[in-house]
Amino acid sequence: MPTPAAPASGESYHVQHSPFGAFASFTVGLVDAPGGFGQSLRAPAKQNVYVGFRRGPASRWQLLPFLTPPQSQEGAFTGDTTVVAPPRGFDALRPADYRRTLGLASDTWRADETRFGFSLLSPFGVVPDPAKMNKAAARFHLAPLVTGWIEYDNRSGTTPVELMFGIGHGDDTLRPLGDTCAALAGFASGGKFGYATKPGRGIELRQGFDVLAPKFHDYRGLLVIAGESALVFAVPAGQRKRFPLVLGFYAAGPITTGLAASYAYTRVFRDLEDVLVHGLADYRRYEKLAAQRDRELARSKLDADQQFLVAQAAHSYLGSTQLLWHKGKPLWIVNEGEYRMINTFDLTVDHVFFELAWQPWAVRDTLDLFVRRYSYRDQLGLSFTHDMGVNDFFTPPGRSSYECDGIEGCFSHMTMEQLLNWILTAVTYAEHTGDTKWLRANAKILLACAASLRNRDNPDPTKRDGILKHDTSRVGHGAEITTYDSLDVSLGQARNNLYLAVKTLGAWVLLEKALARLGRKDESAAARAAGDLLAHTLTTKFEADTGFFPAVFEKGNRSRILPAVEGFVYPLFLGDKDATDAHGRFAPLFAQLHRHISQALQPGVCLDPVSGGWKMSSTSTNTWFSKIALAQHVVRVLFPAALTPAARTGDRVHADWQRTPGCGRDAMCDQIRSDTGISCGSRYYPRGVTAWLWLRE
Amino acid sequence: MPTPAAPASGESYHVQHSPFGAFASFTVGLVDAPGGFGQSLRAPAKQNVYVGFRRGPASRWQLLPFLTPPQSQEGAFTGDTTVVAPPRGFDALRPADYRRTLGLASDTWRADETRFGFSLLSPFGVVPDPAKMNKAAARFHLAPLVTGWIEYDNRSGTTPVELMFGIGHGDDTLRPLGDTCAALAGFASGGKFGYATKPGRGIELRQGFDVLAPKFHDYRGLLVIAGESALVFAVPAGQRKRFPLVLGFYAAGPITTGLAASYAYTRVFRDLEDVLVHGLADYRRYEKLAAQRDRELARSKLDADQQFLVAQAAHSYLGSTQLLWHKGKPLWIVNEGEYRMINTFDLTVDHVFFELAWQPWAVRDTLDLFVRRYSYRDQLGLSFTHDMGVNDFFTPPGRSSYECDGIEGCFSHMTMEQLLNWILTAVTYAEHTGDTKWLRANAKILLACAASLRNRDNPDPTKRDGILKHDTSRVGHGAEITTYDSLDVSLGQARNNLYLAVKTLGAWVLLEKALARLGRKDESAAARAAGDLLAHTLTTKFEADTGFFPAVFEKGNRSRILPAVEGFVYPLFLGDKDATDAHGRFAPLFAQLHRHISQALQPGVCLDPVSGGWKMSSTSTNTWFSKIALAQHVVRVLFPAALTPAARTGDRVHADWQRTPGCGRDAMCDQIRSDTGISCGSRYYPRGVTAWLWLRE
Repeated sequence: MPTPAAPASGESYHVQHSPFGAFASFTVGLVDAPGGFGQSLRAPAKQNVYVGFRRGPASRWQLLPFLTPPQSQEGAFTGDTTVVAPPRGFDALRPADYRRTLGLASDTWRADETRFGFSLLSPFGVVPDPAKMNKAAARFHLAPLVTGWIEYDNRSGTTPVELMFGIGHGDDTLRPLGDTCAALAGFASGGKFGYATKPGRGIELRQGFDVLAPKFHDYRGLLVIAGESALVFAVPAGQRKRFPLVLGFYAAGPITTGLAASYAYTRVFRDLEDVLVHGLADYRRYEKLAAQRDRELARSKLDADQQFLVAQAAHSYLGSTQLLWHKGKPLWIVNEGEYRMINTFDLTVDHVFFELAWQPWAVRDTLDLFVRRYSYRDQLGLSFTHDMGVNDFFTPPGRSSYECDGIEGCFSHMTMEQLLNWILTAVTYAEHTGDTKWLRANAKILLACAASLRNRDNPDPTKRDGILKHDTSRVGHGAEITTYDSLDVSLGQARNNLYLAVKTLGAWVLLEKALARLGRKDESAAARAAGDLLAHTLTTKFEADTGFFPAVFEKGNRSRILPAVEGFVYPLFLGDKDATDAHGRFAPLFAQLHRHISQALQPGVCLDPVSGGWKMSSTSTNTWFSKIALAQHVVRVLFPAALTPAARTGDRVHADWQRTPGCGRDAMCDQIRSDTGISCGSRYYPRGVTAWLWLRE
Repeated sequence: MPTPAAPASGESYHVQHSPFGAFASFTVGLVDAPGGFGQSLRAPAKQNVYVGFRRGPASRWQLLPFLTPPQSQEGAFTGDTTVVAPPRGFDALRPADYRRTLGLASDTWRADETRFGFSLLSPFGVVPDPAKMNKAAARFHLAPLVTGWIEYDNRSGTTPVELMFGIGHGDDTLRPLGDTCAALAGFASGGKFGYATKPGRGIELRQGFDVLAPKFHDYRGLLVIAGESALVFAVPAGQRKRFPLVLGFYAAGPITTGLAASYAYTRVFRDLEDVLVHGLADYRRYEKLAAQRDRELARSKLDADQQFLVAQAAHSYLGSTQLLWHKGKPLWIVNEGEYRMINTFDLTVDHVFFELAWQPWAVRDTLDLFVRRYSYRDQLGLSFTHDMGVNDFFTPPGRSSYECDGIEGCFSHMTMEQLLNWILTAVTYAEHTGDTKWLRANAKILLACAASLRNRDNPDPTKRDGILKHDTSRVGHGAEITTYDSLDVSLGQARNNLYLAVKTLGAWVLLEKALARLGRKDESAAARAAGDLLAHTLTTKFEADTGFFPAVFEKGNRSRILPAVEGFVYPLFLGDKDATDAHGRFAPLFAQLHRHISQALQPGVCLDPVSGGWKMSSTSTNTWFSKIALAQHVVRVLFPAALTPAARTGDRVHADWQRTPGCGRDAMCDQIRSDTGISCGSRYYPRGVTAWLWLRE
């Protein structure tokens, strides 16, 4: 691994601190920006977050830069419209004043020569199948909360120090939690979200128009009509104190329509107070879990940039997860970041590597739901929809929220793509987990998929060459697209597409394996033959003159794309040596792909000439981090000699994109302009967890 | 009544179209501004509202100006960040192009020489006690919906005309309602709000990034990932067609904390779809109810400005109402407009005249809750809190959300004020409704109130003069204030306050009456004596030299205030001739008040020298419409000779304030700068319904 140089100056990025399956995030970290509690949002919330310390009442508060001074609501009451009283008497710390460390399950700020510390933890781990969880396990794994702590080491101090954690949100006043639960010191927004610590000596509640210098105090020192709230903690001189924090969410009742479902956690938590009390009671256990995750990543062979990317990706992934309960059973959703489409299949197939590590049942349940409700048959056979709905609305059976008719670009159908996605996800799940029982139950679906693949090559068996080239009738006078919808034609068109062709090869390899596992020797052999045919056809598409594959086998296309090798990630993940040996079954194709990738990983081709970052296509500056991460993995393992020195610096470039505001203002971003590093879509996005594959290198 | 001149140019104002008791509004009307569905908000929502027509596909849409062009979400999907595709191809009608008519329960726009019409109805009427309602009545009276219609008279047309009603809200996509309910054509935001008509020929759904020119169409012609939605109605050439609309809200589950309660309507409506289907089924009945309200106001003796003010006030009042269900019983709330304080007693006492006309049980229930949970005893005896909480959070027993300790201005305690408010509201309720049973059950409270009044004059009976001058110990080193908290000291200070003194006189008159009704002759006589003492004391405060009362009987105060007569509204409302006869029991005081008011209603005193509007105080430009309306009523009925010609023009001025953006951007506003007509607080406010008193003149 290359030794990382200093990270980019101007580090400033949001991170989603998210429970498992709550579609909720406490987002914070972008410099001089608000954030806070967000439920089901497509972007960070807009609350001021007050975190910092002061060395006694005479000193100024030193706050992390998580706020924009709010217009005080005081004037609305007093009629004095000239009153603007933002929080006063504080210094917003500059990035140079603190050090931030993002772990796989933690995000920690240190300042004042490390005496001050603040950390948010997103504890996650292996989650057992919720259908079989007992209540205690469900309360632990499904609790809609994140934890954290705030501390100060005042052992060498001579004056008491105060610490603050608070939230300001003028439009939605909070309430003191102690009124409904004596075991909690903190504030909540109705029953929807809140933060708390355990009540005790040295812990004070604050609420006012200006939470740093509240002017008005009711019988208990608060002003509950005011929008800014905080906990203030006292650290006496000579002591070091760390205070636990729990940040919780709760969304009661029906959440979705189409399939009417509510959050799984509502079965085991009565309300927000129940969640927060539980979080404080199990605080240590959550802390240990987060620490374990942090250690695993820190001890990996990944360099600092790669570790940052994996950690940031995991945080945003968790923020998009949503575990519901429908008719007595779990209903798993990953929302598609800012688009909030439900279980977009293009993402499911990429999340599979991460999800098989932590919650393999989620992969299985999603595949089942695709079969049960989101499959359809067109003139060529079986396929699946692009997604299951959007924004908590499940679309009708057999229909996605995204796919439109009669067009050729974005928003067209992705019938071939989703057919491949079901095969690849299903076999990857079954082979990795050994769930042959499930595979057997789905044998008919697999065979129907194989038949559909063949028909999409050519309904006439004698005319097949392995490459998908027949669009679904659903497109009408339009054309099918691929998941790379927003790139240029090099990746957008499905017919005769290099990326889809290699992905199809991956599908045949996996089908061969799965059908053999099911004892279906003939069908397995036929799948192998189909793969061989396709591999051969692919070799005929190689341009001997340029040493590249064209991105589309039509109309003289000469775009060069990195996803040429994406389809090999599945056999690679499953340890299929036969299919991934450069000198094995597909040796001629591998040799060509090696040449293709070696030449692609040059500045001006698939390395951006300005930034040095990896690009999906030589003819588009729209590049997608999740797919880069996947391609990096395949290239580093299967085509290591193709890694040019210029290509090796990619991780630093990609990490810098994410940790500066061009992407960082929306936490993890996927679609990025390769020249500027500024996101152009797919913000607040879960798919970056393809980088999890790097831990296998 | 004076003949109104032309209304102010630049008419532009929001109106809250609100169900009864749902704390929800569909707000629309401000020119070139968004609005739409708002649940529990402190200000208008920010959705684009698409309402208009076009004369065939080749023509441009003519839309009412209820939108700001949204940044299209299309670019977020396509990666093309330069794409900005607001709705195109439309003309936003200018106020000169349409005529708007606000009725008591309707708001109607006409354009295209009255061929085009759009109306929103807020049907309201006498609501029986919810504790005793059967389910059918509850569904009718408590349905969380407003109705409306859109029409075009195409009888003389030669081409088909299209009509549109829709909502755009990029951050929160809507779903087509037909998926969950075949009887509905329309869209909903999850289960929370939605709009619908009956499906039928000539009715089309639209959803897209640009709802006027949608580019992408799924299998049913929609694009459900996009934020803009609409119904499009066809009116064939030669026909006139009107289409019904229902706009509904639904908030499931626990809504409040402190007292945990849910919406009463959730007991009789399953979900949003149930509400909308009901609204369409009972459409005619709601329409009749709204028409009846409209007729009543239109046939009243009020002039156009006064009618506008009453209608606008009633709309915003409804928007703040909230009927909940707590432990098997109704729980009534009026939220305090932008402040959202629960049942602020200062408002309850002003709403009483309106509420006794439509839902007297609400007054009774609120009084009971003040006794049961929001009363307290200080060193001088019984009183009540300023409010019961804020933003769906009920404060602990005996504590308000507003009142703070140790201060002298805004946010201090209002102990005297609220003691008077309970007496005045309680007796007004009992005498007006004849609910002597309730009065009897509260006899002890009444007597405790009387004792508390006396102690706040002076704990030593020999030193009493009737004027409240002893602050509650709750203020500490501070001082009590009145409801006029944000005015200058002329009305803000409670001790020795003219406004409170006359209000105290009103309280003694009502106590005398109530105690007599209860057969407590001695106590009644004592109340009469207390009133006489106070009236006499008041006459000694009159400044013979100036012909004015001072606003505060301290420190040489010389402010002049109109609420000097506010306390007489209660005996006046109850028809107490003895107490309100200029030549009767209080003749000397009346003569002085007549002189006071005559002189106050002069430009530069309590008429603003710039605008001509009424001011509460000669020394403050912060004036409150609701209190002006009340003072106008008392002056017009009890002191008609004091009405100067300048004072008579007030209604026009006050109406112009509300129908231009200075107030109109927040629907009905209460606190207004008398020189500019711009609101400085109390926006989106319910209290303007004091103008309901005018219908008694």
